[in-house]
Amino acid sequence: MHKIMAVNAGSSSLKFQLFEMPSEDVLAKGLIERIGMKDAVISIKTHTGKKHEEVSHIADHDQAVKMILEFLISLEVVKNLKEIYGTGHRIVHGGEQFTGATIVTPKVLAKIEQLAEFAPLHNKANATGIRAFQEAIPTAKTVAVFDTAFHQTMPPASFLYSIPYRYYQEHKIRKYGFHGTSHKYVSREAAKFMNRDLKDLRIISCHLGNGASLCAIKDGKSIDTTMGFTPLEGLTMGTRTGNIDPAVVPYIMEKENMSAAEVIDVFNKKSGLLGISELSSDLRDVTSAAQEGNYQSGLALSIFIKRVRETIGAYAVEMGGVDAIIFTAGVGENSVIVREQVIDGLQFMDIKVDKNLNESNENRGSTRSISSFNSKVEILVVPTDEEVEIARDVLSLSNQG
Amino acid sequence: MHKIMAVNAGSSSLKFQLFEMPSEDVLAKGLIERIGMKDAVISIKTHTGKKHEEVSHIADHDQAVKMILEFLISLEVVKNLKEIYGTGHRIVHGGEQFTGATIVTPKVLAKIEQLAEFAPLHNKANATGIRAFQEAIPTAKTVAVFDTAFHQTMPPASFLYSIPYRYYQEHKIRKYGFHGTSHKYVSREAAKFMNRDLKDLRIISCHLGNGASLCAIKDGKSIDTTMGFTPLEGLTMGTRTGNIDPAVVPYIMEKENMSAAEVIDVFNKKSGLLGISELSSDLRDVTSAAQEGNYQSGLALSIFIKRVRETIGAYAVEMGGVDAIIFTAGVGENSVIVREQVIDGLQFMDIKVDKNLNESNENRGSTRSISSFNSKVEILVVPTDEEVEIARDVLSLSNQG
Repeated sequence: MHKIMAVNAGSSSLKFQLFEMPSEDVLAKGLIERIGMKDAVISIKTHTGKKHEEVSHIADHDQAVKMILEFLISLEVVKNLKEIYGTGHRIVHGGEQFTGATIVTPKVLAKIEQLAEFAPLHNKANATGIRAFQEAIPTAKTVAVFDTAFHQTMPPASFLYSIPYRYYQEHKIRKYGFHGTSHKYVSREAAKFMNRDLKDLRIISCHLGNGASLCAIKDGKSIDTTMGFTPLEGLTMGTRTGNIDPAVVPYIMEKENMSAAEVIDVFNKKSGLLGISELSSDLRDVTSAAQEGNYQSGLALSIFIKRVRETIGAYAVEMGGVDAIIFTAGVGENSVIVREQVIDGLQFMDIKVDKNLNESNENRGSTRSISSFNSKVEILVVPTDEEVEIARDVLSLSNQG
Repeated sequence: MHKIMAVNAGSSSLKFQLFEMPSEDVLAKGLIERIGMKDAVISIKTHTGKKHEEVSHIADHDQAVKMILEFLISLEVVKNLKEIYGTGHRIVHGGEQFTGATIVTPKVLAKIEQLAEFAPLHNKANATGIRAFQEAIPTAKTVAVFDTAFHQTMPPASFLYSIPYRYYQEHKIRKYGFHGTSHKYVSREAAKFMNRDLKDLRIISCHLGNGASLCAIKDGKSIDTTMGFTPLEGLTMGTRTGNIDPAVVPYIMEKENMSAAEVIDVFNKKSGLLGISELSSDLRDVTSAAQEGNYQSGLALSIFIKRVRETIGAYAVEMGGVDAIIFTAGVGENSVIVREQVIDGLQFMDIKVDKNLNESNENRGSTRSISSFNSKVEILVVPTDEEVEIARDVLSLSNQG
């Protein structure tokens, strides 16, 4: 039995979950926001129902980590820090170097920081989190788990853009894909639920949250995904455009007197559901407004659904068929209407949803099937859990090392 | 019986075909290149086998048109210019204003020139062609035929990008689509060949040439297409990227010290098959190099095919199934390997090509079926003929008017 902590460090935030492994019981979880501010917020819950919430000045990630660890002791989750066997850190970008979870050595940490070139805000914050935990618990093993790693199995025909080849060779401009930890986790959970070997399955995983991506998974491996060089590409998302004619970039620059970076910022932060609906980036708001007859919200919803649906068609073709479709993440796990309408266009491929199962609230929080008895393809709702997946990686790597 | 001329005027070129309508016999066709240069080249052929080729200084489009018309008289194709009942002009961009072929009034011509904002080089050259013919044959009816018009039936969920809605309202930034005249023509030819009503058919038209686009056609109407605000979006093409993460634009700008417009220029002219293969933009060259084991050419070919194949999957889903797949334009009509490999991934949808029919040289130049006897979907090779489609539009509009 080992206590393992999964960590997700942002530039001014830090999320964690402490697991008992291999049982995967959550011992404690918490969140610190507004790190660096005078009114930073810390909130921790334990499995025994204890809670701690506090607003105070937290100078940096080092202090944030120390506070978390002190609370874990004072809340009696651990007696001393040596009990924490390992920490697993979510890293956004692993480039082409990292094809799986990796024990963090000084060399690995340096590489993670170099890769900040591809994900400037994220990788630096992720590295800061690693350093803070290494200083606070020097005895614990440190493992880096990359959002991109699962997609490193994509073949070149999936990951190469049709740009001059030297841009790939010299600048490593290619599709990387993200949400890898989630796609990996839910595909494994789906195989378990279906009692099938991953090697025999062709899975389309639909991670639909504020960020959204689809992944085609064959033999347990990612062979294609919708996000690209950055998380901007692919589907319509809460605030991101997804695919768009790149020639629109200079056109908007001229019309709106903006720089290219500013246009891409609008594409990332003010587009997607928010941009079309001019109302909200939250699919729940957009859905209710659409149901009340708001035209632009209706458009936003139908564009969102169309892109998911047609990508399922594309990936089915790419894998020569599909055995299971997974819905996961906030929207995927909770939006009855999105699941229904996405699958609605797939009837000609004998993919059918069971209306009652789809609408049912039973077994929420567990993996469940919503496919009709005569559907050729299993349709599953799988709650994603990137933290558990990180803890699993820490355990399996630490046992090897 | 009417003599009708189809005209395609570029910035330094002018192509024409003179038809006898409604029989659609070609009376003469020709091409002038390098207009404005001292060594402009004019070449004309007639249906009786007469030819004229000449290199000389041609100052502008007015002179080019006068030369063409003089040759038509001296080669005895027409006795006098009044015999030419109408001219139909290919116009690249019709914006949202033009939903079909239109008789050219001074207002229409002004509008075409305004729309040069979306297609700066093309629309201006197209308008120059119109003026030159109107001056040379003032008695002829003039009709404008737009590459974008056929796609104006797309629903908003297909043509809207997921950008702030006001960019659409204020700047008309949306998907327009191109190759409309070709997609329209081949879909009509396919329905005739199948002896079916267009209204009962769901067609995927694959226009694969140096430029390439797919179109989903339901009830005879375009409901989606791959090209976008400009012809850059969508498939991998001879020299164009097609879809790519738009965040790549500022990244290349920084790495290569280029402006956004320069990056888009590379995306249009040095990417696609040429960019990946570093060899050629011509699919024939890329295919033979790939067959000889050239790695990058093999990649270019497989990326080209992958994108066509997965878009067929996407459009099949969008239409709830597909009745016919059409291959047309240079690559679509001639590349056995592209047709075979595109369809190869579609077997799970019971879409199957007949290897012998696909490889056969019989009936080249006519519409022919290459689907296997047990294919659920008709697979057709349809030679495209945008000039005939333009002549048809001229005839039908002139008869109405």
